[in-house]
Amino acid sequence: MDENLELEERFAELKQALLEDDMQRFREPFLEMHIYEQGQFYQSLTSEERHRMYGYLSPKELADMFDVIEEDDEHMTDYLFEMRPGYAAAMLAEMYTDNAVDLLNTLDKKAVNKYLSLMDKEDASEIKELLHYEDDTAGSIMTTEFVSIVANQTVRSAMYVLKNEADVAETIYYIYVVDQENHLVGVISLRDLIVNEDDTMIQDVMSERVISVHVGDDQEDVAQTFRDYDFLALPVTDYDDHLLGIVTVDDIIDVIDDEAASDYSGLAGVNVEEVSENPVKAASRRLPWLITLLFLGMATATLISHYEELVSEASILAVFISLITGTAGNAGTQSLAVAVRRLAINDDKENSFVKTVVSEILTGLVTGFITGLTIFIIVAIWKHNPILGFVIGMAMMCAITVANLAGSFIPMLMDKLGFDPAVASGPFITTLSDLTSVLIYFNIASLFMQYFIA
Amino acid sequence: MDENLELEERFAELKQALLEDDMQRFREPFLEMHIYEQGQFYQSLTSEERHRMYGYLSPKELADMFDVIEEDDEHMTDYLFEMRPGYAAAMLAEMYTDNAVDLLNTLDKKAVNKYLSLMDKEDASEIKELLHYEDDTAGSIMTTEFVSIVANQTVRSAMYVLKNEADVAETIYYIYVVDQENHLVGVISLRDLIVNEDDTMIQDVMSERVISVHVGDDQEDVAQTFRDYDFLALPVTDYDDHLLGIVTVDDIIDVIDDEAASDYSGLAGVNVEEVSENPVKAASRRLPWLITLLFLGMATATLISHYEELVSEASILAVFISLITGTAGNAGTQSLAVAVRRLAINDDKENSFVKTVVSEILTGLVTGFITGLTIFIIVAIWKHNPILGFVIGMAMMCAITVANLAGSFIPMLMDKLGFDPAVASGPFITTLSDLTSVLIYFNIASLFMQYFIA
Repeated sequence: MDENLELEERFAELKQALLEDDMQRFREPFLEMHIYEQGQFYQSLTSEERHRMYGYLSPKELADMFDVIEEDDEHMTDYLFEMRPGYAAAMLAEMYTDNAVDLLNTLDKKAVNKYLSLMDKEDASEIKELLHYEDDTAGSIMTTEFVSIVANQTVRSAMYVLKNEADVAETIYYIYVVDQENHLVGVISLRDLIVNEDDTMIQDVMSERVISVHVGDDQEDVAQTFRDYDFLALPVTDYDDHLLGIVTVDDIIDVIDDEAASDYSGLAGVNVEEVSENPVKAASRRLPWLITLLFLGMATATLISHYEELVSEASILAVFISLITGTAGNAGTQSLAVAVRRLAINDDKENSFVKTVVSEILTGLVTGFITGLTIFIIVAIWKHNPILGFVIGMAMMCAITVANLAGSFIPMLMDKLGFDPAVASGPFITTLSDLTSVLIYFNIASLFMQYFIA
Repeated sequence: MDENLELEERFAELKQALLEDDMQRFREPFLEMHIYEQGQFYQSLTSEERHRMYGYLSPKELADMFDVIEEDDEHMTDYLFEMRPGYAAAMLAEMYTDNAVDLLNTLDKKAVNKYLSLMDKEDASEIKELLHYEDDTAGSIMTTEFVSIVANQTVRSAMYVLKNEADVAETIYYIYVVDQENHLVGVISLRDLIVNEDDTMIQDVMSERVISVHVGDDQEDVAQTFRDYDFLALPVTDYDDHLLGIVTVDDIIDVIDDEAASDYSGLAGVNVEEVSENPVKAASRRLPWLITLLFLGMATATLISHYEELVSEASILAVFISLITGTAGNAGTQSLAVAVRRLAINDDKENSFVKTVVSEILTGLVTGFITGLTIFIIVAIWKHNPILGFVIGMAMMCAITVANLAGSFIPMLMDKLGFDPAVASGPFITTLSDLTSVLIYFNIASLFMQYFIA
């Protein structure tokens, strides 16, 4: 609380300095703040106030702050476009390449080319290289600001290189060792550099078993490697083991967050990352799924309509429609979530397809049997009609088993076909399971019809 | 692929060495592997093979490996109990305190006390201190192996301290500066130490605005601070600003993963972290929710049973029950996911309760109106009955709006009451919305009954 208050006061003073156009009073307290707080302050300003800031700060100083502003901020492009193009280009050049690329990726081609043409050739070509990598690959999240050295030098001279690059490198806590052709041959942590004697040769203390990722690797696999090994950074190589860049742990946290949000969105049938307070906008994001599922639901309605005669003879059947579809839908959702999760953590996907589906069917039979037995007892007592109870219980068991089959089979199949299994949404599975549940229910009911009608 | 093959060969050779009881041939290649790979190897062994390993490795060497084995491995306690108690205690003492505590937390009190009594007093008291902290707080994930120095010394002497502690500290990339009473007064990164001259005084280059967390802070808030500031470690203090420990980014990645899994589990109504291949076990984990919801579903069935006469007169009504409950359930799930997500990312919870609920109701009205209009047109044409179409469309709109209200209100309320909003599961919302949808549907239908029956 105190800290927040202190920060608010600081923000107020800085705004006052901006208002009075007092550059001296602005710069020092501003630059003293952590870059994240600088970003918070910047994002709280009006366009006019921001313009003043551009006059006060060097492109490098602004770039440090822009490095921590999330690139999915909706005002990001406004910020860039309100700067003089030359200033914006200089700032982009000073940012860490991976962040500059993320930012440029939100712009259209014309704007990107404009900024690139205003930069040094060297800066522009570094950025251009990274712009090429496909979304969601190691290449798309790596940066080129790393420290690399050759092996036949001493710890002392390596430390010297490090001191010189400490200002521009995104991390100096791992130093990568390359040969003459830039092949990655080793790695040494700053911790190891520090504890070794100055005259030790790098080749004697570096680790030659370097864990690295390929530039085309899926970013989720890269995140898994970070989780497994607890690294702070990982080197990225091409397929001939040339060192191209590094991925740092802060970018991996973003990947993990995005991954979690997309799994969650899939299960809910709505993109939770595009949340809007505007009801019309929010509705427009949810309607595509809802309307699609409405048409799938129409299939269920059509099916029931075939059994309308049955219902008019035995209206008691209508009482249990929503209970059976609802319970089967719940079971299907559970199955789906387990299958998607298993796909996410399982490396050995090949052998588990049949195993998972069979295990889900068996689980469905067990849950279905117990749930079916429960409802059989309830209905038999409530409606004094054990045959009806048997019909409902039997339908429940079959519907749950089929829902479990669908809930596991569909995401597994999507994964096999190369799609993200998480897009098989919960609402889709429940709506599909409504259809199969109704089909099962009315078929069983018509078989036993003659016995349970009074 | 190549790397995996190489690793498999390595594993096979190590196993051979264990089989032939050849300690010399085992130790060097084993210790050369990354500790994560050592863990993978260890976890692939039989109990007998593991026993041989305990003879070959020092408690410290085994501890390094145990530091990266996830504590939720189900065999963890078996591993500990199969070691000689003295060896296990020595290993626990050599582990990073936070990891040892996580491990001990999976054991019963008696076992914990046994191991603690076998340790050095100092090691035992460090662990005891951390055992006290409540689950899911900063205290429960912090470690006490950090580097702290006093301010009135030079960079050179600080580097000297660092070199000595590099072996035991969990991270040496931040050095925390404390006063005589151990109050946290500053921080300096190893990067800053390296770029400054040896004779510079620490107090002149340290940052005095240290971002820290309190020992009782929720671990999810700590994770948010890591996300915002892109730190690799954060200091943890008590409420009088005494430095107690640090939290490192690898532990935060675990927190973020757990958080995501628990949100996902909540939405699905099943704990996806406790996945079992055994159908009976799996069923026993899913049945509590299913049976609970079955009883809630019975309320819906009872409600419909009150309208049984209505249905027997107009069996066409039964055709649309699952369509209306299903669509409203889908909308409610979307609403729930958005509300839970908004709660997770929103700092300013107070003011957004009413705003979120109102915005969700309005969104419900918009989606409901469009979905209702769609189904009105379909039913009017399909059944040649515009009045029936109107009833269905109207019921759809109201049911969706109410589902959106429930989907946002319930998690917000749970959050207000201090519960985790993510436990308001998707299945619960859909089952609840079945009830309200049916109520709305049959009430609207009975109002217009006389008009749409041929």
